[in-house]
Amino acid sequence: MKEECAVIGVCSNKDVIDQLYCGLYSMQHRGQESAGIAVCTDPASRGESAGYTGHIDPTGNTGNTSSVSVHKGMGLVSEVFRNLELKGDVGIGHVRYSTTGESGIGNSQPMVINYAKGSFAIAHNGNLVNSIDLRSALKMRGCVFSTTTDTEIIAKLIVQEHMKTDTFTDAIKSAMNSLEGSYSLVILYENKIIGIRDPRGFRPLVLGRSNESYVLASETCALDAIDMAFVRDIKPSEIIIIGDGLKPESHTGRKEKIAHCMFEYVYFARPDSVIDGKAVYEIRKNLGRILSREAPVDADMVIAVPDSGITTAIGYANASKIPYGEGLMKNRYFGRTFILPNQEERERGVRIKLNPIRSEIEGKRLILVDDSIVRGTTIKRIIRILREFGASEINVRISCPPVRFPCFYGINMQTCEEFAAAKKTVEEIREKINADSLAYTSLEGLIKAIGFTEEKMCLACLTGDYPIKDKQMKLEL
Amino acid sequence: MKEECAVIGVCSNKDVIDQLYCGLYSMQHRGQESAGIAVCTDPASRGESAGYTGHIDPTGNTGNTSSVSVHKGMGLVSEVFRNLELKGDVGIGHVRYSTTGESGIGNSQPMVINYAKGSFAIAHNGNLVNSIDLRSALKMRGCVFSTTTDTEIIAKLIVQEHMKTDTFTDAIKSAMNSLEGSYSLVILYENKIIGIRDPRGFRPLVLGRSNESYVLASETCALDAIDMAFVRDIKPSEIIIIGDGLKPESHTGRKEKIAHCMFEYVYFARPDSVIDGKAVYEIRKNLGRILSREAPVDADMVIAVPDSGITTAIGYANASKIPYGEGLMKNRYFGRTFILPNQEERERGVRIKLNPIRSEIEGKRLILVDDSIVRGTTIKRIIRILREFGASEINVRISCPPVRFPCFYGINMQTCEEFAAAKKTVEEIREKINADSLAYTSLEGLIKAIGFTEEKMCLACLTGDYPIKDKQMKLEL
Amino acid sequence: MKEECAVIGVCSNKDVIDQLYCGLYSMQHRGQESAGIAVCTDPASRGESAGYTGHIDPTGNTGNTSSVSVHKGMGLVSEVFRNLELKGDVGIGHVRYSTTGESGIGNSQPMVINYAKGSFAIAHNGNLVNSIDLRSALKMRGCVFSTTTDTEIIAKLIVQEHMKTDTFTDAIKSAMNSLEGSYSLVILYENKIIGIRDPRGFRPLVLGRSNESYVLASETCALDAIDMAFVRDIKPSEIIIIGDGLKPESHTGRKEKIAHCMFEYVYFARPDSVIDGKAVYEIRKNLGRILSREAPVDADMVIAVPDSGITTAIGYANASKIPYGEGLMKNRYFGRTFILPNQEERERGVRIKLNPIRSEIEGKRLILVDDSIVRGTTIKRIIRILREFGASEINVRISCPPVRFPCFYGINMQTCEEFAAAKKTVEEIREKINADSLAYTSLEGLIKAIGFTEEKMCLACLTGDYPIKDKQMKLEL
Amino acid sequence: MKEECAVIGVCSNKDVIDQLYCGLYSMQHRGQESAGIAVCTDPASRGESAGYTGHIDPTGNTGNTSSVSVHKGMGLVSEVFRNLELKGDVGIGHVRYSTTGESGIGNSQPMVINYAKGSFAIAHNGNLVNSIDLRSALKMRGCVFSTTTDTEIIAKLIVQEHMKTDTFTDAIKSAMNSLEGSYSLVILYENKIIGIRDPRGFRPLVLGRSNESYVLASETCALDAIDMAFVRDIKPSEIIIIGDGLKPESHTGRKEKIAHCMFEYVYFARPDSVIDGKAVYEIRKNLGRILSREAPVDADMVIAVPDSGITTAIGYANASKIPYGEGLMKNRYFGRTFILPNQEERERGVRIKLNPIRSEIEGKRLILVDDSIVRGTTIKRIIRILREFGASEINVRISCPPVRFPCFYGINMQTCEEFAAAKKTVEEIREKINADSLAYTSLEGLIKAIGFTEEKMCLACLTGDYPIKDKQMKLEL
Repeated sequence: MKEECAVIGVCSNKDVIDQLYCGLYSMQHRGQESAGIAVCTDPASRGESAGYTGHIDPTGNTGNTSSVSVHKGMGLVSEVFRNLELKGDVGIGHVRYSTTGESGIGNSQPMVINYAKGSFAIAHNGNLVNSIDLRSALKMRGCVFSTTTDTEIIAKLIVQEHMKTDTFTDAIKSAMNSLEGSYSLVILYENKIIGIRDPRGFRPLVLGRSNESYVLASETCALDAIDMAFVRDIKPSEIIIIGDGLKPESHTGRKEKIAHCMFEYVYFARPDSVIDGKAVYEIRKNLGRILSREAPVDADMVIAVPDSGITTAIGYANASKIPYGEGLMKNRYFGRTFILPNQEERERGVRIKLNPIRSEIEGKRLILVDDSIVRGTTIKRIIRILREFGASEINVRISCPPVRFPCFYGINMQTCEEFAAAKKTVEEIREKINADSLAYTSLEGLIKAIGFTEEKMCLACLTGDYPIKDKQMKLEL
Repeated sequence: MKEECAVIGVCSNKDVIDQLYCGLYSMQHRGQESAGIAVCTDPASRGESAGYTGHIDPTGNTGNTSSVSVHKGMGLVSEVFRNLELKGDVGIGHVRYSTTGESGIGNSQPMVINYAKGSFAIAHNGNLVNSIDLRSALKMRGCVFSTTTDTEIIAKLIVQEHMKTDTFTDAIKSAMNSLEGSYSLVILYENKIIGIRDPRGFRPLVLGRSNESYVLASETCALDAIDMAFVRDIKPSEIIIIGDGLKPESHTGRKEKIAHCMFEYVYFARPDSVIDGKAVYEIRKNLGRILSREAPVDADMVIAVPDSGITTAIGYANASKIPYGEGLMKNRYFGRTFILPNQEERERGVRIKLNPIRSEIEGKRLILVDDSIVRGTTIKRIIRILREFGASEINVRISCPPVRFPCFYGINMQTCEEFAAAKKTVEEIREKINADSLAYTSLEGLIKAIGFTEEKMCLACLTGDYPIKDKQMKLEL
Repeated sequence: MKEECAVIGVCSNKDVIDQLYCGLYSMQHRGQESAGIAVCTDPASRGESAGYTGHIDPTGNTGNTSSVSVHKGMGLVSEVFRNLELKGDVGIGHVRYSTTGESGIGNSQPMVINYAKGSFAIAHNGNLVNSIDLRSALKMRGCVFSTTTDTEIIAKLIVQEHMKTDTFTDAIKSAMNSLEGSYSLVILYENKIIGIRDPRGFRPLVLGRSNESYVLASETCALDAIDMAFVRDIKPSEIIIIGDGLKPESHTGRKEKIAHCMFEYVYFARPDSVIDGKAVYEIRKNLGRILSREAPVDADMVIAVPDSGITTAIGYANASKIPYGEGLMKNRYFGRTFILPNQEERERGVRIKLNPIRSEIEGKRLILVDDSIVRGTTIKRIIRILREFGASEINVRISCPPVRFPCFYGINMQTCEEFAAAKKTVEEIREKINADSLAYTSLEGLIKAIGFTEEKMCLACLTGDYPIKDKQMKLEL
Repeated sequence: MKEECAVIGVCSNKDVIDQLYCGLYSMQHRGQESAGIAVCTDPASRGESAGYTGHIDPTGNTGNTSSVSVHKGMGLVSEVFRNLELKGDVGIGHVRYSTTGESGIGNSQPMVINYAKGSFAIAHNGNLVNSIDLRSALKMRGCVFSTTTDTEIIAKLIVQEHMKTDTFTDAIKSAMNSLEGSYSLVILYENKIIGIRDPRGFRPLVLGRSNESYVLASETCALDAIDMAFVRDIKPSEIIIIGDGLKPESHTGRKEKIAHCMFEYVYFARPDSVIDGKAVYEIRKNLGRILSREAPVDADMVIAVPDSGITTAIGYANASKIPYGEGLMKNRYFGRTFILPNQEERERGVRIKLNPIRSEIEGKRLILVDDSIVRGTTIKRIIRILREFGASEINVRISCPPVRFPCFYGINMQTCEEFAAAKKTVEEIREKINADSLAYTSLEGLIKAIGFTEEKMCLACLTGDYPIKDKQMKLEL
């Protein structure tokens, strides 16, 4: 099951609820389906939890004295936490977008686990590639699963390992030996927060701090939102533990070759984030500059498909000296809830979402910039509308090379057959969408724009060369 | 954790949803907090489940081909199932009232379990007395609990036993060897329903049938509601399995001395039910007759605290030839939701709930009948109101001997200190509530009214003589 | 448009919200569809109104300095006023049941009126018979109507009259000259409450008081609920004004022959109310006594259709010395919301609502008492169930003579064709419902039981002799 | 009471619901508080209306055979019409934003009026300046008002005039003689839609068409959204009637000097609309060009306060050859619902709403463009954040001259005291917000950018020279 998510954890000596809330709010581009917060509460204050806040009673636990309260729900952060009555100095949070229909409150996170040696809460961003094997193996040991998430597999694996090891850290290390795929985890355990990044470093995870707090978060934009200074990226294979003394303690799990996901930079991360040392906004602007050099065209105006293509379009415009204009404006009230009462025409949706500005289109030779073409139906409609508004020429420029292979590491892309690029040439796609010209940034251009060497990146969706061999063929294809 | 609940299961060769719905509707006096229905669906139709119906995907299961869909929620049957889209020929249901604050959808039932050898759904009425020990033992084997219910303990014990035995029935028998306390269970497993009653037979469980269906239910009133004929009570220690052929198959688990709960007859069961061969309504009327002989008093009118005292009051009136009258009528719109906006006086609640009829009270010597006195505050307020309406004498008669000890087997009573009867003499209580006289049915009278011999009954809350020794001291006191 | 309603008004020197709330709560048997409260607030505190509380700004008014805030909604009192933030020393309230589909918040009451000479709020119980004529006449004067209620007609008539008269009281008197039909009104005007009862006194209206407050209410049960002493019934044609000095001031409008509605006593009013000097509960019990004399039958048990037949059944039982028993018990969780998910059988509803007690039915010759037979389908189903449970004989006794004519004065009865009694003989009805015998209280018996002389009562629904001639033929038939 | 609104009307020979819905959706920038649609339904289909759709029964009407159904509610278009069951070939719609707390469903539009000569529905955009006088005058004729809207005043004035005139058009003309202020009206009357624009043409109103339909709408963007061709602007003083034959019929009411509102161009209208022949987007871009000439400054980057300043910033950048950059990005999930659970810091709101891009800010001399400064608190916070992110210089440029006077014609601006510009010099404001420089477009520049001569515009909020004399002093100041 594929998920796009964000995780956060804060350890402080004062209440962290506002920081968890604002941090999740700032990372909602990574998941708008459900949200959750879990905090450590000491036994004395356990009675406080109220509302639809679940409280897991650790009756019968041995070995720990703290307890975990969780509040989660379906919907946006602002909806889920409208009446948030949790309090605590240490806590974690999660936002989630599930892509396979396996949504529902039961699968939302953080997940709270009570077991023989204590209790913990866990939040996960990523996707295991050996989840079916792991689930079966755990069931054969008598395990019962109450969700369909990878998160529960990871949690129960840690529990099983902890029954055999002394420390929780050793249990995590043992579990990491069995986990294959992408995982950036934040765990709440005994008044500590623990951050874990998989050995390939597919998904981001960063450390920030202020005078009295440490934060772990998927993206640096969460640090900005809560006024925390960036300390460093969590390293691939790293296990970082931040507890009462607040001094982070770093451990290392299984090592593998690094494979940072290029799609975080091109599309997924927020433009104002910095991931593994690279500023996302700069990369997107660079892509525009590189594209203007790789695929120049004489035109009157550079416009973008809003919002995804704007930054690259500005980069293209600045580099090419062709003016940037807002040929298409986004209706700021257009939301998930737009439903035509009588469902007369599905195409009207695009028209109502994107408002063409006639004066920037009519009679003009346009360069239209976006970050990707998936099925091609949306851009085809946009091109038709631009022609109706009098565009004399439409040159489409895409900031990323054609996506031709599925992602098994946590980015939701359509299966191969659905990709416009999978079996079509660029010329066939151009014809299908009815553009006057079409060009994509080259792989070399992309690598140069991001700034890593090729071997440190996961480019599997572009090249078909997967960092984890032997596994993906078994997957849910 | 103490719970009052009802369970039901129907196995048929046509859709059973209406029968489960109406059966639960008729047993809501046993639980108004949450309700749930689970049905077997064959794999072909799995995609149908919709709405807030959870569907547990048995991915990775081995050994069974059926699947279970469940719909549950907080609230009354009519609220929870407003949009019920389940369909199935075999299913179980549950209504629940939790008494310890551990409510919430997570603890609602039926619980669905997916494990290595298949999947089942389980619904439970009763209370284990060794739940802490069992939970700890299971945790030491690596089990993780996602609820605080006894039901999950029972379910995971069965899973663990099934990993060691060939048949599901053997797994149940093994589990019964470890379970101490009261449990009337209905399980949905591989298109069969299974009924289990604990060795002492604390809580009721009955079998009914029509031409095409069999039903298991907590009370016979559910059979009447769905027009099914009563077949027999499930015997203590019995495991009954009803599958495709529809011919019930009976097994026997661990045997113990029988201990039917007297409180089902006096208060808890619905008046039109028949439990272990005894008609509840008749017993309540008998209690009135016996009370009129044990504690006669010259009076003008017998009235009841509605609704709990009415049947006994009629029995008292008929036997004593003193007319029965409706001195207090219940406001039929009074519900859980009565809240004085400004919370001026809490006493006004009683006044608005119970409407005194002046012509039946003024100048009259009254006999006021109820089934129990818990803290005594409500009856004290009622007596004050009756005096304000001109009653010249108020003689209180209670249909059950004083409850002095806590129940560990599934009836929610206050802890010892809270009982008016626990440390006070009858005269002290009379004085506290300001009655002119006060009398309770004697233990002998109660036993006679019910009609069992004393050794077949659990009278622990009256006598302190608990059927299960050694266990209750450890409990949540 | 026919409505059943209750009205209340309280004038005090302290906040009256709790009294309005509890009074309406106690009169919900008169209307469960919508509820509303309006209070006078002085200009200084106008900003307070919040929530879904509407506030009518009297901008541009001349001649008064007070202002009216209103809070109303669809649903039960407890639902509508869950968050009631009104405050005020003088206020009125209303509960309503609309019978013609013209429900909706727009038609709910109290209605607030702002006009050239001030503002008032009005609540109405009753039904005009000349509403169509009055509405047309007012429209021809340029009036625009925003609801379909009689209440708005009355209000706008008062406004029109007040433009021609000096005092509000004179405007009311003039309006009364045009109003035909039943109306018990409570008006909130300039920190006063005004009670008005139509010249025939169809619907009840009573005055109560405590040390610091006066109350006007449809029934005395509202006085009991808020601990106010009964003072007297408002007289037919009376206009009573209670203001700051709290001393009621009485005026008299147009006079007509009195015609108290007999159905208030037989069915509609709450049993613990006293209307125009007659105790409702006593009358219902009397009807049982009279019925036992008028239509005696040898039987083993008197049972009732709950709740409507219980009091009369007890009266019958006491007079006949045949024991009263609860042969049918009402499911206390059965509500408006009972819907069979699959709508399999509509008849199951009766079975689930009414629980037969076998021991009170089986082998017994029964007398089954109810207050009326409308279409006969419900009692027919009940008789079938009783026979299934083994009743050997079923003798039906109805506490009121057959209803054969429609009511135009505010009681919702089906139109003539629908009455079982309208075109059938008693013997034909008996045969249709399959009873062994059937008898109704005689008209003489009814009159005697109530205790008024015949000419002071409206018996139109029984006799066809309407107190208001010439009008009803024009009505919405 | 001031309101910002949009109106629409469609007359067709097929169902118009989708067109009304999409048209309102596209004009939500003019009002997000409530929405409503009213359609003509012929008597035969009246029973259809369902849900929370109100239906006004024209019982007792004379002279027309059509009827009006309305569906309205609080919230966004997508929320209000989630279950829209209206159908009709002719209808009108309205979205509204109320600025004075007088919100609530009672004041939402369209308003439906039933009166002696028929029924109509009316939707209004604008603000009367003589509403108090008109309301008083109507009250003196016996009128009762059920809302606090200008719309009800207009409606009742038309009703009163129609009682004295033969045709509805004459009634409108007579009413226009009394109305002072701004009003763009759409009326639904006898299967016709009628558009009315006040004599000064303050607010926009346009006519569009397709083969089978005519549309009246506040802005041309609504025509684009439903694929209708622009025909022409409705002229000031014009009454246009579109009925069954679909050929518009034009009448003329009272004439006055034209005064188009400049704020529609600068801020209020959607950028892709064309109002009275002027393209809004072009004007905003022109303002940037003019501003770059009037207030040039040497800088590294032009950035905007999103979304309001973006177009002008691009115009400034293009003209000045200084690159445009996205120094501040708007959080696309930031909504009305952002509430910090613990309300720790109000300033955090700005930080979470606007995400600064460090690479576009750090070390740069910035030009920051917005359309206006109201209280100055928001821009002050933005400037502080930009300095924290390392901006070396911040030059603020505002696209409109300082707003110093209140608007009485339908735009919600704060009262004079609240304007940063009202009593402060530009230098004082610059100091307060801590900018390195501050400049506004000049009045001449604004006039030139829009393209009308000064005498055709309302510039009252900038100059204090009001088009309607003698009236505004009486207003709600």
